[in-house]
Amino acid sequence: MSLTEPILRGERRAIARQISGIENNRPEARQVLAELYPHTGQAYLVGLTGAPGTGKSTLVNELAKAYRRENKTVAIISVDPTSPFSGGAILGDRIRMADLAGDPGVFVRSMATRGSLGGLARATADAAKVFDAAGFEIILIETVGVGQAEVEIAGLAHSVVVVEAPGLGDEVQAIKAGILEIADVFVVNKADREGASRTVAALTMMLDLTDHSLPKTVFHHGQLMEVAATVGSPSGAEPAAWRPPICKTVATQGQGIAEVVAALAEHRTYQLNNGMLVQRERERLIFEIQQMLKERLLAGLLAKASPEEVNKILEQVVERQLDPFAAVEILAKVDVK
Amino acid sequence: MSLTEPILRGERRAIARQISGIENNRPEARQVLAELYPHTGQAYLVGLTGAPGTGKSTLVNELAKAYRRENKTVAIISVDPTSPFSGGAILGDRIRMADLAGDPGVFVRSMATRGSLGGLARATADAAKVFDAAGFEIILIETVGVGQAEVEIAGLAHSVVVVEAPGLGDEVQAIKAGILEIADVFVVNKADREGASRTVAALTMMLDLTDHSLPKTVFHHGQLMEVAATVGSPSGAEPAAWRPPICKTVATQGQGIAEVVAALAEHRTYQLNNGMLVQRERERLIFEIQQMLKERLLAGLLAKASPEEVNKILEQVVERQLDPFAAVEILAKVDVK
Repeated sequence: MSLTEPILRGERRAIARQISGIENNRPEARQVLAELYPHTGQAYLVGLTGAPGTGKSTLVNELAKAYRRENKTVAIISVDPTSPFSGGAILGDRIRMADLAGDPGVFVRSMATRGSLGGLARATADAAKVFDAAGFEIILIETVGVGQAEVEIAGLAHSVVVVEAPGLGDEVQAIKAGILEIADVFVVNKADREGASRTVAALTMMLDLTDHSLPKTVFHHGQLMEVAATVGSPSGAEPAAWRPPICKTVATQGQGIAEVVAALAEHRTYQLNNGMLVQRERERLIFEIQQMLKERLLAGLLAKASPEEVNKILEQVVERQLDPFAAVEILAKVDVK
Repeated sequence: MSLTEPILRGERRAIARQISGIENNRPEARQVLAELYPHTGQAYLVGLTGAPGTGKSTLVNELAKAYRRENKTVAIISVDPTSPFSGGAILGDRIRMADLAGDPGVFVRSMATRGSLGGLARATADAAKVFDAAGFEIILIETVGVGQAEVEIAGLAHSVVVVEAPGLGDEVQAIKAGILEIADVFVVNKADREGASRTVAALTMMLDLTDHSLPKTVFHHGQLMEVAATVGSPSGAEPAAWRPPICKTVATQGQGIAEVVAALAEHRTYQLNNGMLVQRERERLIFEIQQMLKERLLAGLLAKASPEEVNKILEQVVERQLDPFAAVEILAKVDVK
């Protein structure tokens, strides 16, 4: 029996099973996703990223509670970095969500993946679609770590929150990690600690140096994007200036959370008014299709090629008898006989 | 005039120009890379990763000096995370290398890329090939940040050093970031600081819980890899246990550097003896070809397809009239007319 109907009704076990199916890349899960797809596009996605030690998890927790007080349903997707070997997430921090447990308006889910970089981003995007179709109004996507993969995952969201905290060795971690410019809202958490005002000052200085009139987009790379950019009109969207506000919070005490919720609401309104919300969504979907299409083309090629022949070419590269570019050209035509 | 010959002679300006060509994805750079390729495979690649604030840059600097004392030539590739918007690296930390400047046996290069995740990893791999062909014996690849992309970049190397430091908010940052298991050697830098022995103890405990008999590989994902795994024999390599040693350093004072160099030499010997070195190289090359092949197939498809038709399909997905999977199936056949 298909999971589609139960998911659309918001049944928790069906949602959980579907997300496991996505993680394990099961074909049925793909079919269900396709059926859910027309029902997506309603939820508001908020990405949260920042270095370990910033108290991001507590902040997410408090944000969820704040949205619940507004009577909005909330899904939390916690993206754990996966060891490239074991495939298992080391940190299972569902426990921290204890005070949200039992509330049927909240769904907390940790994501792990057995795949590569792209795999994790795609699984997260698909999980968000499931929650979206199931009727969750707010989807909080939390990533651990501050690398480029995290930028891509956070970029799935309509609004991106970058969390900083004073006294983590560097003034502002985001600067080093390159996530500064994807922020729509900054949160300086642990604001009761020494050095908080220095962190705020460093961020303010960075923002002063930034041109806020440039449109933000994470997914403007790749060949399919370029085709879409040449032909497609970006839904009448016009870049307009948005200077990310800096909110100070002490998440462990619930301080400043209302201000973060307000800043996010303001950012959403801003994006709705100037068409940026539609444009971001469009770019994200095209990027998603681009990634899947590449996989699909390679699969199509390999299905037609002889494994022995493919392997022979690969071995020639390993033996340095053939350079990788030449190998790619030969492999691209390996099915044409 | 081709840059190939000057690069093979080790001319610095030619090397610098070639790496810029790689960053900017220039076609001539590809051609030169293809010509350099048969001359690669001699250098020893060491990847270094760890959270900002661990003093990784100073450590790299000191390692370079130690290798120079052994009369080995050293290239340092410093991978700066790139803003997804400006395409420019925020941190240009070539200055820190001041005491290496003027030594013709050292080449320091920061990498930035205008592309996506995969782009940065590939550009770094290609830069390493240039230094390899130019005759540099040791190539140190330093990444900033602790995300999954950094794991992939560090995985280019023959040996991976994960750098920790006490007192960065969390006991061991690597645990959260999932880079723990790619380490061949651990360095606890700033070992004169409070908490250093706690960091060592935490790492030791983690290592006690790990099965060191499992072979390490970063690049075992993807369709082409699976074909290669079915057909190819992994060069007689047998997984053998390697428990990563933990070295304590105070890089700013040059303390403990000799031990890191010794640990790396030991790891290299270990890998040479059991065939792991060849196997890692093989996996990396196949992964590289896989990524390029996917790009190549998409380019081939789009060259034959009508941009208007492609865009029409994309718009139907954006309008939720077509689900992404169905769109991919249609697009995969869009050139068959």
